[in-house]
Amino acid sequence: MVVAALSDRSTEMSEIETAFKGEKVLITGGLGFIGSNLAYRLVDLQAKVSIVDCLLPQAGGNLFNVHDIKDRINVTFADIRDTEAMNERVIGQDYIFNLAAQLSHVDSLTDPFTDLDINCRGHLTLLQACQKYNPDVKIIYAGTRSQYGKIEYIPVDEQHPVNPTDTNGISKHAAEQYHILYNNLYGIKATSLRLTNTYGPRHQMKHSRQGFLNWFLRLAMDAQTIKIFGNGKQIRDFNYVDDVVEAMLMAAVNDKANGEVFNLGGSTSNLIDLVRLIIKVTGTGAFELMPFPEEHKRIEIGDYIANHNKIEKILGWQPKVSLEEGISKTVSFYRQCRSEYWDTEQ
Amino acid sequence: MVVAALSDRSTEMSEIETAFKGEKVLITGGLGFIGSNLAYRLVDLQAKVSIVDCLLPQAGGNLFNVHDIKDRINVTFADIRDTEAMNERVIGQDYIFNLAAQLSHVDSLTDPFTDLDINCRGHLTLLQACQKYNPDVKIIYAGTRSQYGKIEYIPVDEQHPVNPTDTNGISKHAAEQYHILYNNLYGIKATSLRLTNTYGPRHQMKHSRQGFLNWFLRLAMDAQTIKIFGNGKQIRDFNYVDDVVEAMLMAAVNDKANGEVFNLGGSTSNLIDLVRLIIKVTGTGAFELMPFPEEHKRIEIGDYIANHNKIEKILGWQPKVSLEEGISKTVSFYRQCRSEYWDTEQ
Repeated sequence: MVVAALSDRSTEMSEIETAFKGEKVLITGGLGFIGSNLAYRLVDLQAKVSIVDCLLPQAGGNLFNVHDIKDRINVTFADIRDTEAMNERVIGQDYIFNLAAQLSHVDSLTDPFTDLDINCRGHLTLLQACQKYNPDVKIIYAGTRSQYGKIEYIPVDEQHPVNPTDTNGISKHAAEQYHILYNNLYGIKATSLRLTNTYGPRHQMKHSRQGFLNWFLRLAMDAQTIKIFGNGKQIRDFNYVDDVVEAMLMAAVNDKANGEVFNLGGSTSNLIDLVRLIIKVTGTGAFELMPFPEEHKRIEIGDYIANHNKIEKILGWQPKVSLEEGISKTVSFYRQCRSEYWDTEQ
Repeated sequence: MVVAALSDRSTEMSEIETAFKGEKVLITGGLGFIGSNLAYRLVDLQAKVSIVDCLLPQAGGNLFNVHDIKDRINVTFADIRDTEAMNERVIGQDYIFNLAAQLSHVDSLTDPFTDLDINCRGHLTLLQACQKYNPDVKIIYAGTRSQYGKIEYIPVDEQHPVNPTDTNGISKHAAEQYHILYNNLYGIKATSLRLTNTYGPRHQMKHSRQGFLNWFLRLAMDAQTIKIFGNGKQIRDFNYVDDVVEAMLMAAVNDKANGEVFNLGGSTSNLIDLVRLIIKVTGTGAFELMPFPEEHKRIEIGDYIANHNKIEKILGWQPKVSLEEGISKTVSFYRQCRSEYWDTEQ
């Protein structure tokens, strides 16, 4: 990965506002958390949005996520591991936001083969489809901070060593490398954004194995006790989903992003301060500290703070939503439609 | 990867001479080039050697490779992607030399799925088998310089960025990361050696897609013209196979190697000088320069010189066989049994 020459001129907001009008956009995993939020934004921008999702039981897909735009988008069901389906879906697309993935760290250890199959064979299937049937497309891939694994220094820049502490980090990294390779070898334009902890509306709330901030929100809203592992001083770096969506759009329209990897990040907090803020916003809930369970301890990465200077310099992206504002918006969303995401009686 | 404290005392040669006596050793891909040479050495050291190989048509496996030791080893046929076979094979082994792989860079681009399937799902299958049925085993994995991809500086140490220029580099790197992860998470002892260009007896000689030095030897022995891509000044770093075998044995018996990645290397030469040496040793053949074919140009990595200080400091390994000596030994071998490796009439 080579850092492109720094841009004097950031991606103008106005460029995003007009760039997607009438453009054909495919979102894999588009019924999931980030994909569905992206779909709303793209519909606003007058893009022709198609979603492909296979609604794997443990993943974050939920038809309600696109309820308010369901008549303005095209939703089909297929797995990114399905060659014929991907061949057909990529044809004619101007942009692909490739968000389908197995995301759970713990699940990746109990079933590493499925993790590998979805995250590597699946993405390779999509990339091969693009090479054959749509080599001019631009692809945005959602990488993850867990590619870095055990943190050696903070803030973590894109040159930080990649030593994943779980199989999910390995498969997500290999998939990112496939995207960059297809950019370099075949001219398919591809960018990877290494997401940190993203939170916001439309995240699945059924289990705690993806996205602990949203899980903590559920517990607080249900007036439960939030269990924090360890001493609660571990630092994480959060992004409200709208900021992540904006980064994806900016990377999509800017050729300086082609073949590049960018960190996201922006709102750092230790877990105790985060939970106090959640309890303040929701007005309910409590917390207690507890020792790390064994399956979490062995994949704990230490403090994480992203250095996101590269995307700021090259694409002009900056996160705009503070942690308090983001949490407030998220709580408002789930207060309106909690029953679509979890059954409080369970 | 953390560099262990430097050893005052190298692995003594005498340790290798006694450590394997009576030990049970499994070699995956053991009918191939390096695996079979390793088997000869381990038989000399009185180990109980089992080989598992599936003799994939394009790979380097050849029953003749173990002809002289066939009554002193156990050879069975299975694919590392076969869960039941791997579960059964790993039981009771003290050491596993995990050399089965898809190795061709060009083939990995024409069929990336098979490359992924063998190099990632296959090795994951072996590691899962060890986790379940033999967590105390020590595994040596054969990594490759192609994990580094485009070279940013020379000599290349183990901290060099990993940006593969082909799918094979991606899958081989992911498989290495799986080995190190299983070392760190589950206590399975694992070491990766990143091999550079290894040459010597028992390499397949049917096609040019693995191991160009051996291929050049075939051409020279057949009095053919060797075609060198580009200006011939590109540098590669070579190891005679006996030196690689010794590194594997030293890593196997030394706990300081657990969880570590080591570069090999030792004899650097540019291609023209190498070919002149080959022609001098064989007494036949010629060479000419030609432009890079497209499928090679796009995966060309630039000069490669390994920094192998780490393995020298921690394990006491040094390559011993010069390029001229190694080439002479290799030519002698193929002169004795050329017909087992290629048909000159073809």
